[in-house]
Amino acid sequence: MDKFIVIGERIHVISPEIKEAIGTRNPAAIIARGKVQLEAGADYLDVNIGPAERDGVEIMKWIVPELQRALDNAPLVLDTVNQDAIRAGLEAYNPAKGRAVVNSADAGERISNLDLAAEFGAISIGLLMKKGVPASNDERNEYLQTILEHAMEAGMDPAEDVWFDPLTLVIKGMQEKQEEFLEFIRVLKEMGLKSTCGLSNASNGMPKHVRPVVDSVLCAMSIECGLTSAIMNPTDKALMDTVKTSEIVLNRTLYADSFLDI
Amino acid sequence: MDKFIVIGERIHVISPEIKEAIGTRNPAAIIARGKVQLEAGADYLDVNIGPAERDGVEIMKWIVPELQRALDNAPLVLDTVNQDAIRAGLEAYNPAKGRAVVNSADAGERISNLDLAAEFGAISIGLLMKKGVPASNDERNEYLQTILEHAMEAGMDPAEDVWFDPLTLVIKGMQEKQEEFLEFIRVLKEMGLKSTCGLSNASNGMPKHVRPVVDSVLCAMSIECGLTSAIMNPTDKALMDTVKTSEIVLNRTLYADSFLDI
Repeated sequence: MDKFIVIGERIHVISPEIKEAIGTRNPAAIIARGKVQLEAGADYLDVNIGPAERDGVEIMKWIVPELQRALDNAPLVLDTVNQDAIRAGLEAYNPAKGRAVVNSADAGERISNLDLAAEFGAISIGLLMKKGVPASNDERNEYLQTILEHAMEAGMDPAEDVWFDPLTLVIKGMQEKQEEFLEFIRVLKEMGLKSTCGLSNASNGMPKHVRPVVDSVLCAMSIECGLTSAIMNPTDKALMDTVKTSEIVLNRTLYADSFLDI
Repeated sequence: MDKFIVIGERIHVISPEIKEAIGTRNPAAIIARGKVQLEAGADYLDVNIGPAERDGVEIMKWIVPELQRALDNAPLVLDTVNQDAIRAGLEAYNPAKGRAVVNSADAGERISNLDLAAEFGAISIGLLMKKGVPASNDERNEYLQTILEHAMEAGMDPAEDVWFDPLTLVIKGMQEKQEEFLEFIRVLKEMGLKSTCGLSNASNGMPKHVRPVVDSVLCAMSIECGLTSAIMNPTDKALMDTVKTSEIVLNRTLYADSFLDI
């Protein structure tokens, strides 16, 4: 089994600092956040520019080379619903340190992002949803089949080129849905497919001191079930310790007394 | 699925304080440790008096009623290799708040502890070992069959009356054996059997600041796989938070913002 892939979530237009940096085309704050996340152990940086309907193409054209130039071609996850912006990001992308990841295709209107990823030799996240969140694993399975079929028609190898996202559901409100989520990660593992998710969505709305505990427990359980990557906060030490420890327990990195400090 | 059962491990003759309290037949320190563990959330108290070859019978005759009288008949796990002492403990035991647990039968010389438990209507832990630790899940399965057969011959219901212990192995030295351990918990779950383990054995020999992290990750993974109880330290807050959070994620206790403080 490959090493678990940590995708840093902290370059996100929802942050006022990042929003301003994008608006003024001043890359310093964005590069700084990228650097901190890579130093904390992120393997990929998610670059979420929001819907960016008006200027998404210009933003991606600018932000992708700025980040990669400053951060030794760190691999990026291009995150927006604006497909033209994704294309612009892929055109500007340097794959020297890892393939670009398109975030994301789904089983509905955004399925053509698979074709776009295929055109550029990129990976695509495949969200197991169509409209709204999946109500059951039967629905997840239906969306999985749709995405698998489309990916193969697009010439992709679904086991390598798509990271399937079973969709983390918020515990406050959908507590009874978590076990199905974990089960579906196991289904993906048994099919030999790679997976990802927005891990911290589950703890949305919980008190601040509770969230790291919930995120860590769900992370350990998800990795045990076979999750191969997650979009998460690499600067949350408890969460990164959980990832490192999970890799130790599952024998993917060799134990050393100092493993938490490496 | 029933609530996860926390068995407090802190009444153990290896502690100098407990050893002295037993030696001088002064129950205060033992009762105090029992109380702290129950207040921290323990469901059962393990009472480990060591081999106690010479005076095990007298110790159990004394310690079981002392503890239960002081602690509102808290349910106990009677832990010694001295079978006569186990019998004495069972004779003195009050099951008002929960059945006694014999710790433990195995697939070898100690298999007759199943008969003893059956005689008293007690539960028995069934260690999946014979001599030395199991080398593989094939061995665990062989020992499981031996114990299942013997338990049924003794008139026990193996799904209710035996808690199977797949044997936690130390990560430093047997890192490659952890995934099998987790797999076997899943096997037990799929067979509808209950399980337990000495959780912290896995982190034996690790630095002090690392152990709670490793224990917590293994705990979350084990509960996800279907572990139904563990012998552990209920005064380790990180570990108890992990147990509570696992119950939330798996929808066995209803979420409330204050769940970690309850």
